[in-house]
Amino acid sequence: MVSKNQIKLITSLQQKKYRIANKLFFAEGVKGIQELLDSDFVLEHLYTTQNDFDAVSKEKKTIVSASDLKKLTALATSNSCLAVFKMPTEKPIIETGLIVALDSIRDPGNLGTILRLCDWFGIQQVLCSKETVDVYNPKVVQATMGSIARVNINYIDLNAFVATTKLSVFGTFMDGTNIYKSVLPKEGIIIMGNEANGISTELEKLVTSRLTIPRFGDLQKTESLNVATATAIVLSEFCRG
Amino acid sequence: MVSKNQIKLITSLQQKKYRIANKLFFAEGVKGIQELLDSDFVLEHLYTTQNDFDAVSKEKKTIVSASDLKKLTALATSNSCLAVFKMPTEKPIIETGLIVALDSIRDPGNLGTILRLCDWFGIQQVLCSKETVDVYNPKVVQATMGSIARVNINYIDLNAFVATTKLSVFGTFMDGTNIYKSVLPKEGIIIMGNEANGISTELEKLVTSRLTIPRFGDLQKTESLNVATATAIVLSEFCRG
Repeated sequence: MVSKNQIKLITSLQQKKYRIANKLFFAEGVKGIQELLDSDFVLEHLYTTQNDFDAVSKEKKTIVSASDLKKLTALATSNSCLAVFKMPTEKPIIETGLIVALDSIRDPGNLGTILRLCDWFGIQQVLCSKETVDVYNPKVVQATMGSIARVNINYIDLNAFVATTKLSVFGTFMDGTNIYKSVLPKEGIIIMGNEANGISTELEKLVTSRLTIPRFGDLQKTESLNVATATAIVLSEFCRG
Repeated sequence: MVSKNQIKLITSLQQKKYRIANKLFFAEGVKGIQELLDSDFVLEHLYTTQNDFDAVSKEKKTIVSASDLKKLTALATSNSCLAVFKMPTEKPIIETGLIVALDSIRDPGNLGTILRLCDWFGIQQVLCSKETVDVYNPKVVQATMGSIARVNINYIDLNAFVATTKLSVFGTFMDGTNIYKSVLPKEGIIIMGNEANGISTELEKLVTSRLTIPRFGDLQKTESLNVATATAIVLSEFCRG
């Protein structure tokens, strides 16, 4: 059984202000939850429809009906389990290697996919502008597939940070140099811009290396790449060596 | 005003069987609709909340209220317009250059993103297994951002086609050769597999070149790439020259 108060608390965690107030967030699905359990994240409570997750103590686990779980989920297609975790405090920024900086990424699926890509390419640090969607949004957590536990994520004043960094600052634009023909270093900040507006004018002024992903289709027509697929191509180029 | 019959017809087009029965599909949003209007697609009727799309004749345009449009939309966030188009008959397969073959891609967003990528990289032909989500699904149409009009898409018995093609057949697996160190041709079939299961066992037997996208993150942990981001990396490698 899930009490009314538990339902109220968990559904409230779909909103950022209640996540901050309660210092809690939740993840759904066996795979994503298992990844977080295997990490530094601290479990608050697990709700599952099956007698699974043997490693979780009885006190922290409630077996619920599928219909009860449906009252808690943030997803259209509900999973068999949902786990509430403590929201960790931000760790210090790791200012070495490649850093991905996100300038107002608004779509939860895009942020989740980008974090999964960063994890794949061994990027340790992601910096998000304050306008970027919250990483503890349930849809972001879902899309990261556990990568949230392996990438260091900080929400900062991105303009101020980039203005004072000693690292090279990369951004993709229509008029940059061909990324496939550029020598790309193993250290630097790669800025990915907002879905609709790209990199903001202020941040653009701080970019030291302007890159372009060349387009091979009809130059008059194909218009743009989705930011997550653009990130895939950029990270692949930086890392392929 | 939108009549009850129009609402019934248009909402029915969210389902494949009614799209096939009526030979119609619909697109939403100014950008996507404009791209289809600029293509070979034939407009059946446009519903818009604004006095826009001047090039569309009065007979084919109805100005509707936002609340009427809400009754038609397939999207959570509705747009200012929706257009019904005739579903074209499939054109012959273009068996030259690079061909992307999709083995049971189930997520509409993934298919849409992949088609947009193919358009970007100048891929003219996409082959879909019969189990792949329908390209005229409104969520696919939305995610393609007009690319649906520029890429030739055929639904076929993929196993039979691949079994008899003279082209090289590429697929990504855990145990293939490093894609970054492979010489990749300008002609061939690139198979991308299902979100959960990858490339089917039958098709795998027909692959002539096994490739791997190397992972740079923690080898024990990061588990996989989303199929759309994997496609981005693979097409980037094939096209970068």
